[in-house]
Amino acid sequence: MNVILLDDTDFADTDTVHLSGRRVQHMNQVLACAPGDELAVGRVNGKLGRAKVTKISARSAVLAEVVLDDDPPPPLPVTLVLALPRPIVMNRLLAAVTSLGVKRIWLIHSRRVEKSYWQSPVLAPENIDQQFRLGLEQAIDTVLPEVRIHKRFKPFIEDELPGLIRNGPAWLAHPGDGGPVTERTGPQATLIIGPEGGFIPYEVDRFDALGVSRLSLGPRILRVETAVHVAVAEVGGLFK
Amino acid sequence: MNVILLDDTDFADTDTVHLSGRRVQHMNQVLACAPGDELAVGRVNGKLGRAKVTKISARSAVLAEVVLDDDPPPPLPVTLVLALPRPIVMNRLLAAVTSLGVKRIWLIHSRRVEKSYWQSPVLAPENIDQQFRLGLEQAIDTVLPEVRIHKRFKPFIEDELPGLIRNGPAWLAHPGDGGPVTERTGPQATLIIGPEGGFIPYEVDRFDALGVSRLSLGPRILRVETAVHVAVAEVGGLFK
Repeated sequence: MNVILLDDTDFADTDTVHLSGRRVQHMNQVLACAPGDELAVGRVNGKLGRAKVTKISARSAVLAEVVLDDDPPPPLPVTLVLALPRPIVMNRLLAAVTSLGVKRIWLIHSRRVEKSYWQSPVLAPENIDQQFRLGLEQAIDTVLPEVRIHKRFKPFIEDELPGLIRNGPAWLAHPGDGGPVTERTGPQATLIIGPEGGFIPYEVDRFDALGVSRLSLGPRILRVETAVHVAVAEVGGLFK
Repeated sequence: MNVILLDDTDFADTDTVHLSGRRVQHMNQVLACAPGDELAVGRVNGKLGRAKVTKISARSAVLAEVVLDDDPPPPLPVTLVLALPRPIVMNRLLAAVTSLGVKRIWLIHSRRVEKSYWQSPVLAPENIDQQFRLGLEQAIDTVLPEVRIHKRFKPFIEDELPGLIRNGPAWLAHPGDGGPVTERTGPQATLIIGPEGGFIPYEVDRFDALGVSRLSLGPRILRVETAVHVAVAEVGGLFK
């Protein structure tokens, strides 16, 4: 937790907040906060800044002199379209891609996604929100990503993907072929990553028909978790 | 497991192998192998190829007509120097960076590495070998990485790092500053990644004094696991 995130409901007035729960635990156990200490804070979906601890107990804290005057870091301009991975991997990825600056995460079905994954508590809105916050707190960012869930492949590819493609180049990371990122035009690229075992030929054909390019991740077959990390950085232009 | 790895000790003669353990389990439970099936195989530190199942039971299998005629994919030309992360993260990273093609992993101490981490069973040679094999099986590769363990910072930086730097550019991924990879000369780059919280100023000064460059991973603070993935791909030139 490199920043304490403040919600609108935490504010008692414009520059005073009342905190409880996980953030107070962190202030006590990791930061060993005492009254008078300054802390890095950020308002959810707002600005970054600092605040001063005025009261702290085991369960609650009051911060005053909250000053929010820094913009959060710019988003990584990539929409991640991910065939739903198994829940434990999905959970780690929600926080990890948030920490990389991804702000749009579309979870889709594919033939090789086990249907039971869609029932996982990992996908409960409260858990997704929690993982996003862990990613933002790690990265010192405030802007919660947007997530969309498409439990059927066809409506996604027919009704949603054409709109994404109008915003910039779209890349499919599919084992065995493809090239490097050759184009960084448009406000927002799209990166599509399949399930373990890959999209089935019918699905790949549908992407091809819409003009999605193939991104090579090198000569090796990568796990989804590894592929997402390296491809998000490449397509999002983390190093550009 | 996208390839079955064969050890020298598995060979009964030049083109027949006897298997047991985890590989046979995979052949039964995932591949549902029967006599006559062809399988992708690779000889540890040797070539890739194919073999035919001639016998299979719950506990053992015989493969014949082993033909090994394909080279494994080329190594990713980067030596990863990593301040020992906490064991659960280290364990995942051993397999993940192996799957990316890293062949040289140097684990070092730093002030912010908890000393207890060095006692973890994750560092037992049998476990490291096992994680490397999981990475190779995922990637369809045969060449086991080399690992070196430096439980003290000073001997590493004085006796080892100068030799690494003679092989190509060296990059330190340190939060808050640095630029992109500007140079890909030399046979082998070096990538240095610190512990959660970063190297202490004294350690950073020692890297600076040897002419190590700073690599920026963007405007956000990343967890070690995320940083290793994206920086290995960038410094190793995965997308070049």
